[in-house]
Amino acid sequence: MAAVLRGSRYLVGRCSKNVDFVFVSTRSMASKTPVGFIGLGNMGNPMAKNLLKNGYPIIATDVFPESCKEVQELGAQIVDNPADVADKVDRIITMLPSSPNVVDVYTGPNGILKKVKKGSLLIDSSTIDPSVSKDMAGAAEKMGAVFMDAPVSGGVGAASSAKLTFMVGGAEEEFTAAKELLSCMGANVVYCGQVGTGQAAKICNNMLLAIGMIGTSETMNLGIRLGLDPKLLAKILNMSSGRCWSSDTYNPVPGVMEGVPSGNNYQGGFGTQLMAKDLGLAQNTATNTKSPVPLGSLAHQIYRMMCARGYANKDFSSVFQFLREEDSQ
Amino acid sequence: MAAVLRGSRYLVGRCSKNVDFVFVSTRSMASKTPVGFIGLGNMGNPMAKNLLKNGYPIIATDVFPESCKEVQELGAQIVDNPADVADKVDRIITMLPSSPNVVDVYTGPNGILKKVKKGSLLIDSSTIDPSVSKDMAGAAEKMGAVFMDAPVSGGVGAASSAKLTFMVGGAEEEFTAAKELLSCMGANVVYCGQVGTGQAAKICNNMLLAIGMIGTSETMNLGIRLGLDPKLLAKILNMSSGRCWSSDTYNPVPGVMEGVPSGNNYQGGFGTQLMAKDLGLAQNTATNTKSPVPLGSLAHQIYRMMCARGYANKDFSSVFQFLREEDSQ
Amino acid sequence: MAAVLRGSRYLVGRCSKNVDFVFVSTRSMASKTPVGFIGLGNMGNPMAKNLLKNGYPIIATDVFPESCKEVQELGAQIVDNPADVADKVDRIITMLPSSPNVVDVYTGPNGILKKVKKGSLLIDSSTIDPSVSKDMAGAAEKMGAVFMDAPVSGGVGAASSAKLTFMVGGAEEEFTAAKELLSCMGANVVYCGQVGTGQAAKICNNMLLAIGMIGTSETMNLGIRLGLDPKLLAKILNMSSGRCWSSDTYNPVPGVMEGVPSGNNYQGGFGTQLMAKDLGLAQNTATNTKSPVPLGSLAHQIYRMMCARGYANKDFSSVFQFLREEDSQ
Amino acid sequence: MAAVLRGSRYLVGRCSKNVDFVFVSTRSMASKTPVGFIGLGNMGNPMAKNLLKNGYPIIATDVFPESCKEVQELGAQIVDNPADVADKVDRIITMLPSSPNVVDVYTGPNGILKKVKKGSLLIDSSTIDPSVSKDMAGAAEKMGAVFMDAPVSGGVGAASSAKLTFMVGGAEEEFTAAKELLSCMGANVVYCGQVGTGQAAKICNNMLLAIGMIGTSETMNLGIRLGLDPKLLAKILNMSSGRCWSSDTYNPVPGVMEGVPSGNNYQGGFGTQLMAKDLGLAQNTATNTKSPVPLGSLAHQIYRMMCARGYANKDFSSVFQFLREEDSQ
Repeated sequence: MAAVLRGSRYLVGRCSKNVDFVFVSTRSMASKTPVGFIGLGNMGNPMAKNLLKNGYPIIATDVFPESCKEVQELGAQIVDNPADVADKVDRIITMLPSSPNVVDVYTGPNGILKKVKKGSLLIDSSTIDPSVSKDMAGAAEKMGAVFMDAPVSGGVGAASSAKLTFMVGGAEEEFTAAKELLSCMGANVVYCGQVGTGQAAKICNNMLLAIGMIGTSETMNLGIRLGLDPKLLAKILNMSSGRCWSSDTYNPVPGVMEGVPSGNNYQGGFGTQLMAKDLGLAQNTATNTKSPVPLGSLAHQIYRMMCARGYANKDFSSVFQFLREEDSQ
Repeated sequence: MAAVLRGSRYLVGRCSKNVDFVFVSTRSMASKTPVGFIGLGNMGNPMAKNLLKNGYPIIATDVFPESCKEVQELGAQIVDNPADVADKVDRIITMLPSSPNVVDVYTGPNGILKKVKKGSLLIDSSTIDPSVSKDMAGAAEKMGAVFMDAPVSGGVGAASSAKLTFMVGGAEEEFTAAKELLSCMGANVVYCGQVGTGQAAKICNNMLLAIGMIGTSETMNLGIRLGLDPKLLAKILNMSSGRCWSSDTYNPVPGVMEGVPSGNNYQGGFGTQLMAKDLGLAQNTATNTKSPVPLGSLAHQIYRMMCARGYANKDFSSVFQFLREEDSQ
Repeated sequence: MAAVLRGSRYLVGRCSKNVDFVFVSTRSMASKTPVGFIGLGNMGNPMAKNLLKNGYPIIATDVFPESCKEVQELGAQIVDNPADVADKVDRIITMLPSSPNVVDVYTGPNGILKKVKKGSLLIDSSTIDPSVSKDMAGAAEKMGAVFMDAPVSGGVGAASSAKLTFMVGGAEEEFTAAKELLSCMGANVVYCGQVGTGQAAKICNNMLLAIGMIGTSETMNLGIRLGLDPKLLAKILNMSSGRCWSSDTYNPVPGVMEGVPSGNNYQGGFGTQLMAKDLGLAQNTATNTKSPVPLGSLAHQIYRMMCARGYANKDFSSVFQFLREEDSQ
Repeated sequence: MAAVLRGSRYLVGRCSKNVDFVFVSTRSMASKTPVGFIGLGNMGNPMAKNLLKNGYPIIATDVFPESCKEVQELGAQIVDNPADVADKVDRIITMLPSSPNVVDVYTGPNGILKKVKKGSLLIDSSTIDPSVSKDMAGAAEKMGAVFMDAPVSGGVGAASSAKLTFMVGGAEEEFTAAKELLSCMGANVVYCGQVGTGQAAKICNNMLLAIGMIGTSETMNLGIRLGLDPKLLAKILNMSSGRCWSSDTYNPVPGVMEGVPSGNNYQGGFGTQLMAKDLGLAQNTATNTKSPVPLGSLAHQIYRMMCARGYANKDFSSVFQFLREEDSQ
């Protein structure tokens, strides 16, 4: 039954990125069935636009009506709440700030599951606790719908240029259907396993990222104090076993690399409080599964201390600045 | 004066690796001046052999006479103590376990500096506290000799195959002379700056390496508990911002990669207690320079706890095993 | 209304501990109204017995029927499930292992709230997340009942001898009624504030306890390595600013004190995995309230590593043993 | 021989604190032999004054001549350097900022050991690395003198009121002689064992103190966020197993206690950078003895970060403020 109801989407072809744009766009404008989109914030907005660009009619909603204006002007239909979205489409993408929002959007009084069609495909790209993803999947299944978690890596820039990476958890037989939509918004769509493993992969990556960033910052600061030139030290690390993404791609020391937040007073990039949030999720899942994460845990605490000391909105590479002696001393 | 006394070495040409071996070897056997080598342990032994292979006559010593046998059979002349080495050559390489050994070999009653020739080049490849390197450089300078620190990265295998990386600190005008010898034993010889910066670079790299290794182990363990396949998780990390040398080149999870210690019950590789030693040096230099190194410090403590719990001689990637729930539980 | 329905209990007098036992016991046997007790594990069993001793008829249940035998033989009435308890009494005490059990016992299909009488007093002595306590209080309020959290400090011994300390959160005007029952089972009953603050106080205490215990263990171990006699070091700490409960009352070093688990191969006392559980709760509340707890967080990780290495069932003071060099090395 | 040379001091009686002051003072003024005092800083100055008050003529020196004025006006004789002090007395007390100062004052070109009399008693009250104390003791022994380490706990206030605690390491047969002088400056004089154990005891105490203070600050902050009144929380901790000196005697939360630095904007007390220095010593000794000190190590890092963020001169209890959310957020 689900296959029948949702079957139409198998007919519309893949995302048009690799094909002549005008032709496909025209064709798909005519034939593609609408997609629901809930959560039009900094990330959701450019994601929804990329779906529109790829010819998917969008039916959207957001708790902040002003967030809807931009996509509305581009042709999206705006409705009052998630239940109303679910009433009109059989594929919905959600992009929300945190677990409670997801719970509310799916299971709240005006939530998706109040009016979800049997066989609907529900894809949540929020970064949340994997156990909440599992709960949502269970609740969706009771209504005959399919829930997949598909959190992203990459920031607003990647969202705008459709270069996100999606890590997808859920029933493997639904992955092709999910990939059709997600590949309009991202460059990589990776199947991770059962529901919740998309979140797990995202959380694991960001925990290791935070550890690498703080470690790189400590190391660069120590080396500078010991008389090493920062560019030379970065070069040595990057040809040796100390190499990591934070040392070779996103170096936290001003002047070592171009085009990264450390060169722009730590503006832009990925904010310290967002990293603290992801590390909180990692900590929760580690606590729940009784997994020791000593460095991940300390990384969480350091980003938490930074938030308490005024670094909440700076890029997370500003930990280099946080650890460094103040100029006045 | 120094230039004159040591001048001869500038005539003998560079390390012969890139030239026809037989010819150069023969020529250099005839023309190369002898080099002193002190410390013929697991690392020093293959290093000295590579100098011999490159045509340098060797005059060597070690506190353990049996350590000298192998190079003696290959033609090295063995003498009683460091002072006797210094009496016969004007270039000496030292490769010793720790700071006190270095202090003793240079400044002890039978130390190098008792009989060092004016203008001698003294290269210490031990991994020690950079402040000790500076002390030795000061003491050597008083005797009219030049001291450089040149610690290595790479283990016994790299030492045998002349694939070590040397990080060199000291007067820049002496670097060419040092490189001549070091490039016979290593694939990379990097000039780092003033005396002590070779040690600084080594220590910094290994601190970040330890952080990356523990971080990777925590992350892989957490991911596995959350239901991710370890190979898939490694692949995701390695295409994302969590990527580091420990995840993509030396993965600590058995079965993820071939040819690394995790696939061989953590035998071979770089022992936990050696890593603990290097982290102790990093901690000391951080304390002395008042540099905060929160993750480096915790990494040190974790490797210290592992030594206390029976992991001293396993490869440092065995931290994955240390953090993992015991099978019996 | 609540006051009227539950009013009878104000007539029966306080716990009889300070009065002539036989007389009061007889009198109260006749006059005291029954109390519900749910959760007859290691802690709940002796607690329920102390209520019986003080003349309160008990109506009890537990998911494991065999746990009920002992109190049944002492006169307690056993019923099938929490709802049936709630059907018969207007005061209930719950003592359960963790948050999910509490949620189930209160709000599950056979939970207390299915049949709770208006005006009932529900006291939960489990150690759980304060936010769950608040949720239960809210759910109880909807049914016209009052929920208080009253976790304990003190172990099985203190439970048997009615020496527990209760930390109570909830409406202040209900505290007297709660204290009447709790003072039969404990020596101290402390009012902490609104619902959840009892849990907060418990969690805070145990987090600081864990930090003090690990800190004392590290310190004693370091001092011993530096040549200090452990008894002398403990004496010096205890007369100085290093003094804490773990150094002066529960010293983790075998031989320093009598009558503590360190003198009995870390048997008995408070198990490492129970401490790890409480530290997990502390971590969760800290994460949720964005409070930095760097040492508390590391303490959690250390107890988590100990669980992974075979210390789960030893007293939490065995961290001294965990940190200490193995004898064989 | 030593006993003969230094014998005179055994005749002069104990410190006069418990006897009628005027009489003893007069008598001892006439009979006591002079004592050397090197290092007249914030601590040394009031300590030297207390020796003067107890009738000991003082011969003193300091690298900063102005530091000598106050004791000079009270009758002390000021000389040029430590060697000159050693030339005139057979008992010397040193009170210096750090290890290098101690090395210089004892073994430098104008150091004590240049002119020390055979049999002299040299007492160092500086807080330094125990291994440096051992080195000094060895050097003193070669000159026929006795060295003891006797670091203090208690700050400037305790120094002024002769309420310091001295932790003394060295030959037990010399302890009585040392105690005679030290008990004029302190309320407790504790014999700890061989040379270096005084430092060990001091370092151990301060490491546990730092852990307790940070732990108390985290705990109080978490409790406040969870809705607990800080005074009530402190009271609960202090009657429970979370109790420690930092919670019951020196609470870091403004308003909880009177007369502590937290009530005075963290002015006065024991500065964060002094605590960081002591934790650096603890870390060094732990590294050298291969003792795991995970919490002590993290405490060191936290105080180091605080120094980098402007807290260097605030009392070490200001870690509460450091961890707390900024008001503006």
